[in-house]
Amino acid sequence: MKRWTLYTSPASCSLATHIALHEAGADFDLVKLDFGARQQQSADFLAINPKGRVPALATDDGVLTETPALLAFIAQRFPQARLAPDNDAFAFARMQEFNSYLASTVHVAHAHKRRGARWADDAAAIEAMRAKVPQTMTACATVIEARLVGPWVLGEHYSVADGYLFTIASWFEGDGVDVKPFPRIVAHRERVGARPAVKRAIAEAGG
Amino acid sequence: MKRWTLYTSPASCSLATHIALHEAGADFDLVKLDFGARQQQSADFLAINPKGRVPALATDDGVLTETPALLAFIAQRFPQARLAPDNDAFAFARMQEFNSYLASTVHVAHAHKRRGARWADDAAAIEAMRAKVPQTMTACATVIEARLVGPWVLGEHYSVADGYLFTIASWFEGDGVDVKPFPRIVAHRERVGARPAVKRAIAEAGG
Repeated sequence: MKRWTLYTSPASCSLATHIALHEAGADFDLVKLDFGARQQQSADFLAINPKGRVPALATDDGVLTETPALLAFIAQRFPQARLAPDNDAFAFARMQEFNSYLASTVHVAHAHKRRGARWADDAAAIEAMRAKVPQTMTACATVIEARLVGPWVLGEHYSVADGYLFTIASWFEGDGVDVKPFPRIVAHRERVGARPAVKRAIAEAGG
Repeated sequence: MKRWTLYTSPASCSLATHIALHEAGADFDLVKLDFGARQQQSADFLAINPKGRVPALATDDGVLTETPALLAFIAQRFPQARLAPDNDAFAFARMQEFNSYLASTVHVAHAHKRRGARWADDAAAIEAMRAKVPQTMTACATVIEARLVGPWVLGEHYSVADGYLFTIASWFEGDGVDVKPFPRIVAHRERVGARPAVKRAIAEAGG
């Protein structure tokens, strides 16, 4: 197997894939892009991921993107690490449902804080989006808190969804969310943050 | 197996799951919610899906939401229909990558046309979001066109990703996208639209 390369940027959602690779025991190279220098839009990186986003994982089969796809893939390629339900389509779907919600609702709500220019050109509109982020992210936290029975997202077994929730939940305070009403999320964040693979990924990722 | 129920609304992304169920040969009941009457926010429906969105699929194992999760689940529960790669983690991940892009980038771009109030309160900001939709959806179509070798999203074999792309690509003209530069998408849309399962889902879905 060709050695894999993970393309990340500090303080981005790529941390979730980075965590999953360490939880899996994967051997990989890490390339950190400097978004301040717009390296994600460089010709070199666009040749790797034409969408100009992280995470991107160069594997022996090709370059793979999109966090929910990457997380399930890593779990399936390293089955001995037991990072996703196996041989139970509904349990696997529950994990996917959670990851998809994080990607298409929670991460999207968060992106309106600093990436509003994706969806409007007008400066006042971008500021109006930024102003609503505490409200939308609090609504997301409310959905997650109700869903989170623990100790892990799927119950008794840690999965790639836990590193993903940890990554996104670490944005809450910065997004203006008062986390006091969300004790399960706070406890989950501490539980995940104590794992050696997570500490290692954070130390390597920077940001 | 308890009979499943799919909750949809006309002209929404729930069509993708509806198509997948018919492609799979699944037997299910259909409940169409009237978004004009805000039925998705009714107490009855919030008891089924607290997120107040469609699609939601009530199965014998519980209620499942989020299109990418539903599509992979249906494919896995009806393996004889061959709606997703099996026993090939990377090929499955390619499908998931495509579905995740549709959910978290393309559908999100589209939602800024009529659902801008999710991300800003100010009327002028909501109008500014609406104004940019032709540009963002054209950018998405450009990414998809480059990716689409055909005849199907994954190449030689139809998968649940095809019904999903068909559903989202049917929004392009309404979103102000000139489809002339995207002949592969247009041809794919015609190819998918000719399938009996797709015609049946469209006839049932309304909208």
